[in-house]
Amino acid sequence: MDAGVPAKKAKLGNKSTEKPESHQRMYVHDFDDKEGSATLVFSLPEKVGALADALKVFEKNKVNLHHIESRPSRELKDCYEFFVSCDNVRGGLQETVDDLKGCTNHLQVLSRKHQDQKDGVPWFPRMIRDLDRFANQILSYGSELEADHPGFKDPVYRTRRKEFADIAFHYKHGEPIPKVKYTDAEIKTWSTIFKELTKLYPTHACREFNHIFPLLVDNCGFREDNVPQLQDISNFLKDCTGFQLRPVAGLLSSRDFLAGLAFRVFHSTQYIRHGSKPMYTPEPDVCHELLGHVPLFADPTFAQFSQEIGLASLGAPDEYVQKLATLYWFTVEFGLCRQEGQLKAYGAGLLSSFGELQYCLSDKPEVRPFDPAKTSVQTYPITSFQPVYFAAESFDSAKDKVREFAAIIPRPFSVRYNAYTQSVEVLNSKEQIIDLARAIRGDLSLLEDALKKVE
Amino acid sequence: MDAGVPAKKAKLGNKSTEKPESHQRMYVHDFDDKEGSATLVFSLPEKVGALADALKVFEKNKVNLHHIESRPSRELKDCYEFFVSCDNVRGGLQETVDDLKGCTNHLQVLSRKHQDQKDGVPWFPRMIRDLDRFANQILSYGSELEADHPGFKDPVYRTRRKEFADIAFHYKHGEPIPKVKYTDAEIKTWSTIFKELTKLYPTHACREFNHIFPLLVDNCGFREDNVPQLQDISNFLKDCTGFQLRPVAGLLSSRDFLAGLAFRVFHSTQYIRHGSKPMYTPEPDVCHELLGHVPLFADPTFAQFSQEIGLASLGAPDEYVQKLATLYWFTVEFGLCRQEGQLKAYGAGLLSSFGELQYCLSDKPEVRPFDPAKTSVQTYPITSFQPVYFAAESFDSAKDKVREFAAIIPRPFSVRYNAYTQSVEVLNSKEQIIDLARAIRGDLSLLEDALKKVE
Amino acid sequence: MDAGVPAKKAKLGNKSTEKPESHQRMYVHDFDDKEGSATLVFSLPEKVGALADALKVFEKNKVNLHHIESRPSRELKDCYEFFVSCDNVRGGLQETVDDLKGCTNHLQVLSRKHQDQKDGVPWFPRMIRDLDRFANQILSYGSELEADHPGFKDPVYRTRRKEFADIAFHYKHGEPIPKVKYTDAEIKTWSTIFKELTKLYPTHACREFNHIFPLLVDNCGFREDNVPQLQDISNFLKDCTGFQLRPVAGLLSSRDFLAGLAFRVFHSTQYIRHGSKPMYTPEPDVCHELLGHVPLFADPTFAQFSQEIGLASLGAPDEYVQKLATLYWFTVEFGLCRQEGQLKAYGAGLLSSFGELQYCLSDKPEVRPFDPAKTSVQTYPITSFQPVYFAAESFDSAKDKVREFAAIIPRPFSVRYNAYTQSVEVLNSKEQIIDLARAIRGDLSLLEDALKKVE
Amino acid sequence: MDAGVPAKKAKLGNKSTEKPESHQRMYVHDFDDKEGSATLVFSLPEKVGALADALKVFEKNKVNLHHIESRPSRELKDCYEFFVSCDNVRGGLQETVDDLKGCTNHLQVLSRKHQDQKDGVPWFPRMIRDLDRFANQILSYGSELEADHPGFKDPVYRTRRKEFADIAFHYKHGEPIPKVKYTDAEIKTWSTIFKELTKLYPTHACREFNHIFPLLVDNCGFREDNVPQLQDISNFLKDCTGFQLRPVAGLLSSRDFLAGLAFRVFHSTQYIRHGSKPMYTPEPDVCHELLGHVPLFADPTFAQFSQEIGLASLGAPDEYVQKLATLYWFTVEFGLCRQEGQLKAYGAGLLSSFGELQYCLSDKPEVRPFDPAKTSVQTYPITSFQPVYFAAESFDSAKDKVREFAAIIPRPFSVRYNAYTQSVEVLNSKEQIIDLARAIRGDLSLLEDALKKVE
Repeated sequence: MDAGVPAKKAKLGNKSTEKPESHQRMYVHDFDDKEGSATLVFSLPEKVGALADALKVFEKNKVNLHHIESRPSRELKDCYEFFVSCDNVRGGLQETVDDLKGCTNHLQVLSRKHQDQKDGVPWFPRMIRDLDRFANQILSYGSELEADHPGFKDPVYRTRRKEFADIAFHYKHGEPIPKVKYTDAEIKTWSTIFKELTKLYPTHACREFNHIFPLLVDNCGFREDNVPQLQDISNFLKDCTGFQLRPVAGLLSSRDFLAGLAFRVFHSTQYIRHGSKPMYTPEPDVCHELLGHVPLFADPTFAQFSQEIGLASLGAPDEYVQKLATLYWFTVEFGLCRQEGQLKAYGAGLLSSFGELQYCLSDKPEVRPFDPAKTSVQTYPITSFQPVYFAAESFDSAKDKVREFAAIIPRPFSVRYNAYTQSVEVLNSKEQIIDLARAIRGDLSLLEDALKKVE
Repeated sequence: MDAGVPAKKAKLGNKSTEKPESHQRMYVHDFDDKEGSATLVFSLPEKVGALADALKVFEKNKVNLHHIESRPSRELKDCYEFFVSCDNVRGGLQETVDDLKGCTNHLQVLSRKHQDQKDGVPWFPRMIRDLDRFANQILSYGSELEADHPGFKDPVYRTRRKEFADIAFHYKHGEPIPKVKYTDAEIKTWSTIFKELTKLYPTHACREFNHIFPLLVDNCGFREDNVPQLQDISNFLKDCTGFQLRPVAGLLSSRDFLAGLAFRVFHSTQYIRHGSKPMYTPEPDVCHELLGHVPLFADPTFAQFSQEIGLASLGAPDEYVQKLATLYWFTVEFGLCRQEGQLKAYGAGLLSSFGELQYCLSDKPEVRPFDPAKTSVQTYPITSFQPVYFAAESFDSAKDKVREFAAIIPRPFSVRYNAYTQSVEVLNSKEQIIDLARAIRGDLSLLEDALKKVE
Repeated sequence: MDAGVPAKKAKLGNKSTEKPESHQRMYVHDFDDKEGSATLVFSLPEKVGALADALKVFEKNKVNLHHIESRPSRELKDCYEFFVSCDNVRGGLQETVDDLKGCTNHLQVLSRKHQDQKDGVPWFPRMIRDLDRFANQILSYGSELEADHPGFKDPVYRTRRKEFADIAFHYKHGEPIPKVKYTDAEIKTWSTIFKELTKLYPTHACREFNHIFPLLVDNCGFREDNVPQLQDISNFLKDCTGFQLRPVAGLLSSRDFLAGLAFRVFHSTQYIRHGSKPMYTPEPDVCHELLGHVPLFADPTFAQFSQEIGLASLGAPDEYVQKLATLYWFTVEFGLCRQEGQLKAYGAGLLSSFGELQYCLSDKPEVRPFDPAKTSVQTYPITSFQPVYFAAESFDSAKDKVREFAAIIPRPFSVRYNAYTQSVEVLNSKEQIIDLARAIRGDLSLLEDALKKVE
Repeated sequence: MDAGVPAKKAKLGNKSTEKPESHQRMYVHDFDDKEGSATLVFSLPEKVGALADALKVFEKNKVNLHHIESRPSRELKDCYEFFVSCDNVRGGLQETVDDLKGCTNHLQVLSRKHQDQKDGVPWFPRMIRDLDRFANQILSYGSELEADHPGFKDPVYRTRRKEFADIAFHYKHGEPIPKVKYTDAEIKTWSTIFKELTKLYPTHACREFNHIFPLLVDNCGFREDNVPQLQDISNFLKDCTGFQLRPVAGLLSSRDFLAGLAFRVFHSTQYIRHGSKPMYTPEPDVCHELLGHVPLFADPTFAQFSQEIGLASLGAPDEYVQKLATLYWFTVEFGLCRQEGQLKAYGAGLLSSFGELQYCLSDKPEVRPFDPAKTSVQTYPITSFQPVYFAAESFDSAKDKVREFAAIIPRPFSVRYNAYTQSVEVLNSKEQIIDLARAIRGDLSLLEDALKKVE
């Protein structure tokens, strides 16, 4: 799910001079995290009763523990690392933090209300299963429709939307995504879109997209008469790049949405737009996700590019999350690239829009070179075609540029994704850097060996 | 599951001058792969009808296709890669291979009967789900007991063993491992062993083992009165190192067993030894796996060491698989290491045996330095305490040595594990090596960035 | 020596719409290489009489050999590499090349008239001593003055200029640069300039320049009353970054001048401008070199940046040499950079010009971000202050950008500088790349070791 | 010069049970460094008067300054690095050190009498020109002969030896090595040896030696009737690997001799043995150096191997210098290696000895695998054929092993050779490690680029 397609006007306006709002549409709702909840990550030296001692600190300060896990510390060889979910309902969190600081110099307080917390870091998922916690943070539940939504007055459609939202709301990491039997009407909507767009792809889509599309036809049931199933696609993507789809019950904040990318997880809608206007949708739907986003997530370089944006966002200050969301908008959603001297589309918002896909390669819009420093502060409308696009030279070069941009984000640590443990490692000890150097050296041995054998 | 504990004498003998038999106990059984089945992996250039053309070749030569998958090729940017399972029941496989060679120079024929096949490579799993195919290759089903097995005449025990074997036989990758309710008798057996061994660990086990053991107590229910569940442990290991447990229905060949390690998958038994002899088992059981193996798989360096052995075995000639199985024996099963001037045990066969754990650190056995060239050809008894052990300086140094040893295995390609896709990549094109170089460069950027931020 | 300071108007014009002419002022002269001379570099397999066989080919085709050297081949382990200087006066060079191609697939024909030669590569120095050959390629001998030169009518000055040119003309690599006793008049000119410029440096020069300048005062005699000696400075630079000065008898072509930088050799004038106009010179003089260029060559990152431009130029097509010369102009000569939010000068043409150093940081000129693709095609005047400057973020980022730019230069090989042998290695075999990978791995070991020991 | 050939018995004994004495023959002499002299290397922050302040400290404590140099600091970006030679004749060195410690935490005291100095590090050369200081440290001047030396009673020979010693004694880095006109008698001695040894090389010497030998014939005048000149050879080696020869006036300590190798400088004798016994010499002579050592210094891997030994020795404790000298003995002097299943000689002591070259490959001596931990403590006789040799698998593997051995030498810093500046960098700051990481990344870019272009 994303904000990659035009949303309705009334709410969001299209004043391109406003600061970009990105994925944050401002519904108030009650799916919030418990007031003042936080995750504490800290390391304690290995010794008898280490855990018990730590627990006493929480007890003493009357902090409610929700969950506690201990693991061998990656940061400090002779330590244990604790992941503690707790809340601040009875106060005492700050005292707990202060007490713990007396025992360790490796303490991180991750909190959705990080501003309230001295030294707080914006909460971010450390393990892939932490993404389950996003469900309670949805800004707008998938069945709530605005008054000008094509399906607003259609009770059947609204019931159907509720069914999809409920699937996603109860989904947990590791489970198969439930298969959905799409109705004939739904399939007809898909069919209309599929037919029109596939005519344009050979000439308008980038090379990588066209390379992968036939494989989706062969392996995942991408056909005019069939709406492909998220799980089948997720399996295919997992084989190609490790990307996974995850159903989403409504609108996520930019911070949460981007955090998913850090794990190569893409939050996808499963419902389809209202059949009355097959070529229009005010919000992302399964057509947008499958035809727009999915193909490129099967490309290794694009997958890595997307993950880089996600990794850069973890624990970043709000203003930088905003900038990264804007980068996401102008790349993953509306990106152009140059290939053999010609402009091609690779953004999902383009590849899933019959009208904008033609418009974007015409001489009407302005096309500028992709440059994160500038692109990340460019304003944009979300209810009309884009007046400005940014063109990348290649995904590789775009990835390198995002990485350079990430390096200037003020964040007191670096992060590294560990694909074995499907977790984000915070690099803040010399030992971890030595481990990384050793791993790099191992890869170089492999490179040498492969080089000797090739040809 | 492994052959890490003494098996019975009558069957296997203990002539240490024999060539090591490792995991291959010679039961005949009918769980074999279909006669002459093979996996063909090949790349074809992207063009309309590429798949259809490939399929025609199989049809023409009357080869039965069981399964076909197509993916973007990792080896050659503009190609698709096909994974085809087929059989040779009607002949024609060789002709198919020859025809395909006309279209591609990237063709690999993986076959369990690779000797029958010109240019054949011993079959090995390419994706983690391929491990499901081991179930049909089990050398000895878990409920078949030898005449001198302590449970041979106990019909209740035999029924129970069948239950465990069936769980494993039907297990598929990605599913949760079924939880087992252990009987009071079973728990009592576990309890006896747990009590005795935990007395020895502080003085006899290596530092890494003792570092992790308390975390298993806190997180996975390692207690005197509780047999921990495989799935809980597997989850814990996944968080630590990405290792996973997988239930196994019986004895695997060395080749299959080691191949699992390449994916950081450890095939584990779930049943417990016969209660009549709690301190003895002729075969691996859940006590051996959990107390012997599990703790170290939570150590990143040991995990990588184990995986290196696995990766080295993929597609290796039989004699080298044998050597690697022997290396496995003298490390993962019976390894010693030097720590702060003292010998400590890290092998699971030692850490799960009250008697041998004491014996191995006494002055009775001979201890030699770990040296893969020599260790891999050392004969050993499997029904008595080991007369010779090999001591590593550290897991890191052992890993480097195994990697050097692997480099001399005659194999026309290098392999690399992709933890994102949970698949083994065969490196045999310049493009892949360039990708690898680029990935290494990316890691170096990360290292630089982390270095700037640390402290 | 370089074209880093305004040259006289009459000759060169200042039409900024012309293609940049860079260092190529078009005097005709007779110091050319022998007609049709070429250097052949080729590898032959080790065998008895390899050299004799190769020589016969030259003899047969009546090609005059000037010099021959044989070395162990870096490219192919079991081969010898031959460096042969010869000429084509009697014809037969093409036949020789064709014959040699029959024996080797590693043959490079380096020639100043490479266009005349099928598969010819523009000649470039392979070893540092090859720079001695530039002396015969000078475009304008140092004592030839234009009619509007301030010293044109001063016979004493002209004689003096001849003395300096002769020193340089006879200079050979490895010799100490002769010390010069500057006259009182010369010292006075230096003194005037030194006094004025050193007032501006604290506020106008970049941080790196101001860091190094005091060391030149302490170590190399940079004083108001003393013109420092090239050899003393060269020794200092050698200690800092390995850069060396080399006296130059006149104007070099861009290709030759930039090639020097590939070896970390800077061709420097030794004479001083005419005393009648101390604040003006139509050509580079020792004040420009010492006050403008020298300080930054002591900075490791700047040194590497300069060398990257040089390495990129070796064997590049003429149009790219032109582009690189323009990059050189807008960086090493007229570069600005941003430091702590302020613009500072680092180009030698600015740092040696009292007027332009103030002008360039004023609001009069236009300042654009440094971007090799654009900067390299920017036109510029050479006799007036620059209307456009380019500002780098840092030398490191500028270096990375030049390296990316270099990667698109159409050249069938990569080059690597070997600082041990002071030679340029042409990378065009798998073996060399494996060697490079091994060297990188060695450096990583060192990095690990250093990391363990630091702090 | 080295101790690579049997020295006389009376003096040195051949009790192989003694601790190896290596190159340290215990002549007392008066060429020592000034009593208590030391080199102080320290960094001070850039500020006005930094140098003056530092000088005051020396003055205040009455320490005599011999030489002072300041350079941009490699360790700390905003600092200057000072290299100060001083003595302790008037006392006060310790006070100076203590005072300086107040201003900097980057201070190293290098001293030949490092034991007298708290925190002292054994003196080692930091720049290649520091090797000039060895001349005053010679343990035995080249013209002093023992009573049983074949030339002891030959006044002509002794005069001649004095001439050679004087050349070396006055030699300074950077100068050409004076050419020597060898007498007819000297040439005859060379000729005898040359003829005999070249018969054995094809069958007894290692592949790398035989690869290079013909190039020395073609390029450096290796002929029966000509004693090659050191400078010609040095030029050739410089082109191949950057190795250089340097004449030596007498016996160096192991520490000094090995330190030369760190700079790829080999200290070579220039005189020839006494003509009365052409096949015997109690000490290294020009035949030993040229026929034994020179060829392999032209091999890149061997050159790096030799340098690794040198780098490991810098600042190492005495006992480790001893071990490294022993490693040198059993490799560079008496090393064997296995090539295509056969033993070959690569040690210079073997390749320059007609008798031992045949003996070493016979079945008489014992041959053990090269293993630095063991090899470095092996005793050996220096006046008879070796009873034990060590065989390497390859120079690359030997180099890796030496590097691993070096990592355990107790030394609070790592060193890196900078071939541009011909100086040893002491790595002890985070900034330097970041620079190293950046350099490695640059090399990886080059590797990628080369890989794209190759083939």
